[in-house]
Amino acid sequence: MVSSVLVLAGVGNGSGTGGAVARLFAKEGYTVALVSRGAEALDALAKSIRTSGGKAESFPVPAYGAEELTGAFASIHARFPAPEYAITAAVFNAGHGVWKPFLDITPEDVRESTKVNIESAFAFSRAAILAFQKNEVTPGTGKKGTLVFTGATASIRGNVVTSAFAAGKFALRALSQSLAKEFGKQDIHVAHTIIDGSIATGNTRGDRNTPPSGPVENTTPNAKLSPESIAASYLYLVKQDQSAMTWELDLRPSHEKW
Amino acid sequence: MVSSVLVLAGVGNGSGTGGAVARLFAKEGYTVALVSRGAEALDALAKSIRTSGGKAESFPVPAYGAEELTGAFASIHARFPAPEYAITAAVFNAGHGVWKPFLDITPEDVRESTKVNIESAFAFSRAAILAFQKNEVTPGTGKKGTLVFTGATASIRGNVVTSAFAAGKFALRALSQSLAKEFGKQDIHVAHTIIDGSIATGNTRGDRNTPPSGPVENTTPNAKLSPESIAASYLYLVKQDQSAMTWELDLRPSHEKW
Amino acid sequence: MVSSVLVLAGVGNGSGTGGAVARLFAKEGYTVALVSRGAEALDALAKSIRTSGGKAESFPVPAYGAEELTGAFASIHARFPAPEYAITAAVFNAGHGVWKPFLDITPEDVRESTKVNIESAFAFSRAAILAFQKNEVTPGTGKKGTLVFTGATASIRGNVVTSAFAAGKFALRALSQSLAKEFGKQDIHVAHTIIDGSIATGNTRGDRNTPPSGPVENTTPNAKLSPESIAASYLYLVKQDQSAMTWELDLRPSHEKW
Amino acid sequence: MVSSVLVLAGVGNGSGTGGAVARLFAKEGYTVALVSRGAEALDALAKSIRTSGGKAESFPVPAYGAEELTGAFASIHARFPAPEYAITAAVFNAGHGVWKPFLDITPEDVRESTKVNIESAFAFSRAAILAFQKNEVTPGTGKKGTLVFTGATASIRGNVVTSAFAAGKFALRALSQSLAKEFGKQDIHVAHTIIDGSIATGNTRGDRNTPPSGPVENTTPNAKLSPESIAASYLYLVKQDQSAMTWELDLRPSHEKW
Repeated sequence: MVSSVLVLAGVGNGSGTGGAVARLFAKEGYTVALVSRGAEALDALAKSIRTSGGKAESFPVPAYGAEELTGAFASIHARFPAPEYAITAAVFNAGHGVWKPFLDITPEDVRESTKVNIESAFAFSRAAILAFQKNEVTPGTGKKGTLVFTGATASIRGNVVTSAFAAGKFALRALSQSLAKEFGKQDIHVAHTIIDGSIATGNTRGDRNTPPSGPVENTTPNAKLSPESIAASYLYLVKQDQSAMTWELDLRPSHEKW
Repeated sequence: MVSSVLVLAGVGNGSGTGGAVARLFAKEGYTVALVSRGAEALDALAKSIRTSGGKAESFPVPAYGAEELTGAFASIHARFPAPEYAITAAVFNAGHGVWKPFLDITPEDVRESTKVNIESAFAFSRAAILAFQKNEVTPGTGKKGTLVFTGATASIRGNVVTSAFAAGKFALRALSQSLAKEFGKQDIHVAHTIIDGSIATGNTRGDRNTPPSGPVENTTPNAKLSPESIAASYLYLVKQDQSAMTWELDLRPSHEKW
Repeated sequence: MVSSVLVLAGVGNGSGTGGAVARLFAKEGYTVALVSRGAEALDALAKSIRTSGGKAESFPVPAYGAEELTGAFASIHARFPAPEYAITAAVFNAGHGVWKPFLDITPEDVRESTKVNIESAFAFSRAAILAFQKNEVTPGTGKKGTLVFTGATASIRGNVVTSAFAAGKFALRALSQSLAKEFGKQDIHVAHTIIDGSIATGNTRGDRNTPPSGPVENTTPNAKLSPESIAASYLYLVKQDQSAMTWELDLRPSHEKW
Repeated sequence: MVSSVLVLAGVGNGSGTGGAVARLFAKEGYTVALVSRGAEALDALAKSIRTSGGKAESFPVPAYGAEELTGAFASIHARFPAPEYAITAAVFNAGHGVWKPFLDITPEDVRESTKVNIESAFAFSRAAILAFQKNEVTPGTGKKGTLVFTGATASIRGNVVTSAFAAGKFALRALSQSLAKEFGKQDIHVAHTIIDGSIATGNTRGDRNTPPSGPVENTTPNAKLSPESIAASYLYLVKQDQSAMTWELDLRPSHEKW
């Protein structure tokens, strides 16, 4: 029997969306290939998943960039070769957040934002789609693969200190829509989530799409997104069948002001 | 133990979204209160659900209007009283579709569109929210209730023959967004789906949001939405917990051009 | 020579958008046909325009509704007959604003909102388009007529106390987009403005799209929209030629937070 | 008296939007500083404007990039120093269009798109806003300066062959919205146009935002945008006063299908 592989880019310290997605998909039987910076945290996450009976391996990258992500996919293919394995899910959760007044933003900030949010995403998407195209459609869903991008409020709204971050996130959303339209007829599902609020993480490094202190300070209970609940929505998207696929959904806590 | 009730308005002949939602929620243990025109088809659906071991009852209305829907809710409360029952989910799937060149649209068409798509929806929402407010939060989700509206392509895009339909559907979307913002902090979840494609139904009366022949003729396989898959998304929305709730998601078949 | 007629619905007390549009178009040589409730204020505005050397006449209606607006157009055609006159511009500036928590909104509020914001707008649009279709294209613009709708923040965003107002305004926006798409190829231009802020008026009755106290209290200078500046944008839209027509533009003061 | 300077980036061969904007603003009395690749075409345009009695000078760049545009602004300041001159208008019309199926897009294509559409735009915006901040508000408009970005259909919709182009254009739109929100209260106006159709140009190099053959072949009359009409909208935006400023407007020919 073919083992399904999830490739996940963007894990941070493991306490945010990326970590929760990895753990949930592992529980569902996926072999999880973890791509991220910070080999140590990545290895720790992979180990903790394996300890819980899941399958996970880490593929650290020194930085997010087109070459690095293309390289990571090559390593994943080598480690999890066909026909035993098939990459059927991919999540791009990496992101580079810059929250600065516009005049404080340096060319390096912009460059880093375009590199991580856009150029990396193009390379990751290319490798994921090439992998999906080799698959048979999965019985039950009728799909060859599902690619999910993590978006944020800044994906749909530019704001006072988000010019560089929003530029990257708008671009990622454009990519996801173009891909959804181009590859739907090849039974490939591309989706985009809008995480519209602060995520409850161990520390703020846990999710790089959340500013150290969110745009609105959420101190009330019920005002933060649980990473596990976000992960549940990713699994739902992957499980959608080809007859009713979602390109975009938003997610926010009940007490969020929006 | 309290029995959860789903109130569902808009069933048509039972072969479309409404029927599939009713069957799926009944399977999940919900008591389903069916509100629609056409008592005969409605009774047949309720009966078939009961035959399959589910709980369903029909509350036919002569027409969709504010009074009729308010009345239906009163009957539902009488039939399924607290504390044995609690209305925790409501789906507004009714709709009045008019596909005509603008100059062929009569004042009666516009009036019917505003009555069914807007005035009915306000009355339905009011009754649903008043019912939800009486509930304790549900363990697991942390919500008091979930209200889902069925939207369409015309909810986000006016087009050449959709002026009356789009007016109604845009308005419904506005209502759903206002309610989501106003009642989120009361742990009430309001969501809106965008069904972007033709639905595979027994006949076209099955889903009134789909034109007799859709905007693009879909004759290829994989080009129609399955009502069961749509229903699965409604159940997913109802099951979302308060920490990561979706206001809006789109649904379309993989081979849809959009 | 044919005299161009502007039909304008929604004038209030004359100190807001409607009054400013009437005065500006009269200055530009248009014969202005004023349609609104409140015969007295309407007559006063018409008179003041005539005193300034412009041409204006009032066509009061007892209420905004499909019949009333259809009737007003009939009177305008009778008063300004072809071939001396041609209706080449129409502005729908009427609107019914309701700012109430959802549970305080009555069925009558909803009914009034659908009647004024939607049913009136359909009737007004129908009469305007039928009038435009009789025209030759105007040299210079290549258009047969321009129809402008006044929108608001609530046209694109539902909010906590705007459910009824936003429903009407979303619907109006849908209508305007459908018409723009359907009648563009007949050289008829349909546009929609989004007035995103409070308007500086003599009193709050001056512009019915602005709540008595706006969503954000604007007490700083540079934080209110000038009706004259709004009117300038309407004139600009009417003057656009057929090769580069705008469907939608937003307008807000420089110091508005959005 | 202070002479107003328009800085315009993106001219192509001078027969498209850039050339028309330059000619129109020169006619209005602006000193026009032309920034573009292709020194020869740029010099020819500047010369032709001067021959018609306008003031224009060319500031060619070898490529669009952050450094090159920052350098061009420095040259412009040196050539047109305060207090005789004040930069009060800036138009970013540069763009890098890539129309390719996703799998044909190279990392170099993506890199070029991010460089031209995003990194250049950030540098251009920074220089423009720093220049505007030194100005007094202009009597009549109450603004210190106006920055206009040229967008396209791809600014709001990803499509089958537009993933790289749409990514750049979405990002540019995000930047423009962030800037509009951040600098409005400093009396600086930032706007974004959506050119939704093919532009009638001498040849296709004239406007780099239009694909060699547009997404829909427009062979009928009235189906192309006139560069002069686009330019008129840019002048209108620059002339808007601070009380009613537009962030975004769309422009399309009357016979465009959308």
